[in-house]
Amino acid sequence: MSSGPDRSLILNRRDIDFLLYEWLKVESLTELPRYRDHSRETFDAALDLSVQIAEQHFATHNKKNDANEPWFDGERVHQIPEIKQALDTFADAGLIAAGQDYELGGMQLPTVVEKACFAWFLAANVGTAAYPFLTIGNANLLLAHGSAEQIDTWVRPMMEGRFFGTMCLSEPQAGSSLADIRTRAEPAEDGTFRLHGNKMWISGGEHELSENIVHLVLAKLPGAPAGVKGISLFLVPRFLLNADGSIADRNDVVLAGLNHKMGYRGTTNTLLNFGEGRYRPGGRAGAVGWLVGEPHKGLSYMFHMMNEARIGVGLGAAALGYTGYLHSLQYARERRQGRLPINKDPSSDPVPLIAHADVRRMLLAQKSYVEGGLALNLYCACLVDQEREALPEERDQVTLLLDMLTPIAKSWPSQWCLAANDLAIQVHGGYGYTRDYNVEQFYRDNRLNSIHEGTHGIQALDLLGRKVVMQQGAGLDLLVQTIQQCTRSAAAVPVLAEYAAELDAAVFRIVEITRQLHRTGQPELTLANASIYLEAMGHIVMAWIWLEQLQVAAGRDDDFYRGKMQAGQYFFRWELPKISPWLDLLASMDTSCLDMRDGWF
Amino acid sequence: MSSGPDRSLILNRRDIDFLLYEWLKVESLTELPRYRDHSRETFDAALDLSVQIAEQHFATHNKKNDANEPWFDGERVHQIPEIKQALDTFADAGLIAAGQDYELGGMQLPTVVEKACFAWFLAANVGTAAYPFLTIGNANLLLAHGSAEQIDTWVRPMMEGRFFGTMCLSEPQAGSSLADIRTRAEPAEDGTFRLHGNKMWISGGEHELSENIVHLVLAKLPGAPAGVKGISLFLVPRFLLNADGSIADRNDVVLAGLNHKMGYRGTTNTLLNFGEGRYRPGGRAGAVGWLVGEPHKGLSYMFHMMNEARIGVGLGAAALGYTGYLHSLQYARERRQGRLPINKDPSSDPVPLIAHADVRRMLLAQKSYVEGGLALNLYCACLVDQEREALPEERDQVTLLLDMLTPIAKSWPSQWCLAANDLAIQVHGGYGYTRDYNVEQFYRDNRLNSIHEGTHGIQALDLLGRKVVMQQGAGLDLLVQTIQQCTRSAAAVPVLAEYAAELDAAVFRIVEITRQLHRTGQPELTLANASIYLEAMGHIVMAWIWLEQLQVAAGRDDDFYRGKMQAGQYFFRWELPKISPWLDLLASMDTSCLDMRDGWF
Repeated sequence: MSSGPDRSLILNRRDIDFLLYEWLKVESLTELPRYRDHSRETFDAALDLSVQIAEQHFATHNKKNDANEPWFDGERVHQIPEIKQALDTFADAGLIAAGQDYELGGMQLPTVVEKACFAWFLAANVGTAAYPFLTIGNANLLLAHGSAEQIDTWVRPMMEGRFFGTMCLSEPQAGSSLADIRTRAEPAEDGTFRLHGNKMWISGGEHELSENIVHLVLAKLPGAPAGVKGISLFLVPRFLLNADGSIADRNDVVLAGLNHKMGYRGTTNTLLNFGEGRYRPGGRAGAVGWLVGEPHKGLSYMFHMMNEARIGVGLGAAALGYTGYLHSLQYARERRQGRLPINKDPSSDPVPLIAHADVRRMLLAQKSYVEGGLALNLYCACLVDQEREALPEERDQVTLLLDMLTPIAKSWPSQWCLAANDLAIQVHGGYGYTRDYNVEQFYRDNRLNSIHEGTHGIQALDLLGRKVVMQQGAGLDLLVQTIQQCTRSAAAVPVLAEYAAELDAAVFRIVEITRQLHRTGQPELTLANASIYLEAMGHIVMAWIWLEQLQVAAGRDDDFYRGKMQAGQYFFRWELPKISPWLDLLASMDTSCLDMRDGWF
Repeated sequence: MSSGPDRSLILNRRDIDFLLYEWLKVESLTELPRYRDHSRETFDAALDLSVQIAEQHFATHNKKNDANEPWFDGERVHQIPEIKQALDTFADAGLIAAGQDYELGGMQLPTVVEKACFAWFLAANVGTAAYPFLTIGNANLLLAHGSAEQIDTWVRPMMEGRFFGTMCLSEPQAGSSLADIRTRAEPAEDGTFRLHGNKMWISGGEHELSENIVHLVLAKLPGAPAGVKGISLFLVPRFLLNADGSIADRNDVVLAGLNHKMGYRGTTNTLLNFGEGRYRPGGRAGAVGWLVGEPHKGLSYMFHMMNEARIGVGLGAAALGYTGYLHSLQYARERRQGRLPINKDPSSDPVPLIAHADVRRMLLAQKSYVEGGLALNLYCACLVDQEREALPEERDQVTLLLDMLTPIAKSWPSQWCLAANDLAIQVHGGYGYTRDYNVEQFYRDNRLNSIHEGTHGIQALDLLGRKVVMQQGAGLDLLVQTIQQCTRSAAAVPVLAEYAAELDAAVFRIVEITRQLHRTGQPELTLANASIYLEAMGHIVMAWIWLEQLQVAAGRDDDFYRGKMQAGQYFFRWELPKISPWLDLLASMDTSCLDMRDGWF
């Protein structure tokens, strides 16, 4: 019985190198001023360090995390000690600040390299990795929208791993519907605010892993407009600080309960009460908070963190799919069972599982999902780098493409890399259904990813209802041009020409259908089948991401490139054709779901 | 926090009545001599009894079963007391023997009614229901192939719930490959046998729920032919009996360990050692067993139980999907969240989730999967009844159709009713991912169903490699004729004519492709993509099952029938078209998976 993911089965370093250096050519980033101290050697060193810590400190307690859920004794949350030990190692290695400025103690690594590093932690132990994941996102929001004082006071300790961060959006009654949040923030005389309300689903909302927890909280000021236009953002720490930055009184933020989940169990997930009055800083109930940025602009700031979190969720889904794939691949190579259809001699030796075509189908499908999902998310991380360093006139274009891809980068891996985990169980047979093996945990952990940071349905509405129509369709145009840039060059490569033509046809068709859907003038009809629109666009984007990789691999004889070619072939023959009935359905403006009435169920 | 499935959300009695009385017309079975004492009233009474016991004794500890896994102290297995209490109630109500002859203490209920009753227990608590499930299958095998003495000695106590049964096929090294089993049976002087070997994945293999456990064990006699042709079947009890039938010595069957599973936790799943020598009946090591039937015919006898178990697995998968659907439907009606796309007023009240088209999509998809899955399995149960009562010349035809449908009745619900459970979680959002709600357990429980009793891949090989070619394709011909009988009459109903034409076209195409696949003369090429062949045939069969139901519902104005019509429409518009790319792939004789090499992964 293993105690967590097999250390050698977290991710495939050869593939990471391929994606970073051969496809995305991240070495060229070192020509930019920000990265001029960097080189392939420093990137490799960061990756080596991450692999080592992920193997030695994260993978080692993944299963223990799952079997020993956090528990609350009414006063404190208890967790296995390995979590804090791993996170201290992570922070001491400088990895929380890996992407930040030198001035903040960071390594100034490009985001794409930082995310490639972080993928190892997500794959090795998603429950433990969630704490720095949230902390990094929280810090990035404050760096973009916080005051210099807020950055000094709160971001610096986060970079050192002394404080951790959260994002507090949902409330028990509101879920995804942020227009309905009720948490209120009252101005105090000293320029701070006092918050009152309940926040639900707050990951990392309470624990003893860090000296302090920095909550970023959506709340409403008195007299704020109704709906999302009246939401402001507040920084609310678990502990207030003394003037010298040391920990002072407990703030009025109370853990009302831990959620008990199907997976992702190493991460505390909490219901928090703000301003319940259990603690009364300065003798008065209400959680002390500081306004971040301007009033009523909280949601747009939060989307800074949210967009990063969405791509991060996609990266985590891909990472969980990836490790499951590698585990099932190893099992299929080692486990001998059955004989080939051509062999009827029962006295012959059983063959390894991988000798069965149907097992190779399950492995090839996984390979196409997980390598594709990881590639898409690293591509998006590259866009974040470009966005930061681009000239102003180019920046808008990069932002536009990133906005278009975000719902797909979040949803596609959440759906298909979960499907990969399902196949990883299937390859293991009965053993895969037991907790003696690792794959069932990956499947349970990954199931969260189509729910948090905006459900699948929310992403679908975002893509079809907002993204493809923003700026008169400029985002969609740009995505199409980007894909066509790839298909044009692929068309010149004989083994890829057919794929390029298929992808061009798919793009042409979805553009037509997008126009058709938006011509109705009836939002409910336009959006009725948004989910399969998202899925069709997702498969088109993934076909493009595969074609990008195939252009690098084509004509090269090494086993690794042959594997890429075969996985790409699988995607174009087995996966891309699936969109045809989905697109037919969209084009037919089917109203089966729209027309269905409550009473008919 | 609920303690198990909500009692009113187990299955929909209205739908069961529709399937049994309006579609399958089971009342007409009372014209057969075997069922002449029965009537709709007696059928209803059996259903009422089942609903009541499922609600009051099974649903009530489903969650507790999951949270309190069986554990082994080295001597005894411990389980929550509610399991035994529920099973005693079940047995005392006569439900183990519900389908058996009066002479055996049974109710002589038709199988289709018995299965409709049993579906309530599977949906309410699959972990507890597994014990009678296995016991009934075990008893049916012995009734078909055991001696009169074996029936008297072992089946009668099983009918009373005093003894439970298991099936022991797999071994740790062999898994699905029964040709490789190593358990051996040596003849003893007294006509019994002594068994030595290890059996893996034995559900119900050890517990304290019944006085005795009757294992049906595949093993090899000395000098038996290699492979599956050398397998014999033995009855091996946990305890030997005295001449008066009372419990005597412990037999040499030892629990080597319990498997710890992702779901289905109420059912012990065991590794059993036979003949380890811990107990030495008559002073000699080896588990005492009795040969069932003739030597070397064990596998064909076991397939009696296995085929019944496969259809039962499909029924269980449908039942788990069904209860998840009802839970998510209730949640979608009660939970208010968000507003419709047409309404931009944030001060208006949030709408119930079910008001969102995408939520109705998730509910309608579930409805089409779970009602369809249940219908298919009850149809198969009807075939079992027809098989028993048919004239000899008709019986072969019924058996042929049942053989054709078995891999589909097992696999289709295991895949699509699991997809329904996935959607049930999604409808619940974050709540669905927590153990405070019931749906995540259904998802974990249901994940087993595509693995046990023959994996998805095994079912695919069975369908494409054996069933469609048996008797020169007579089984496929019969299935096609049966479907065409339905499409011919549906074609005359205006609202169904289009569906009938689509189904006819799909059937025509898969028959062509079946021929094409079997023309290659290369088994590996024929069978390379068997899994999607199974899935395509599954969707075709399900479209037919829906068309059957629609013929009853068409033109009727009641909400219930409108719901059937809409779910059928969903299946024909959203699901059946999915087969088109699958069939294209099969027709292209794609070799992506076959060609993939180990070294390329």
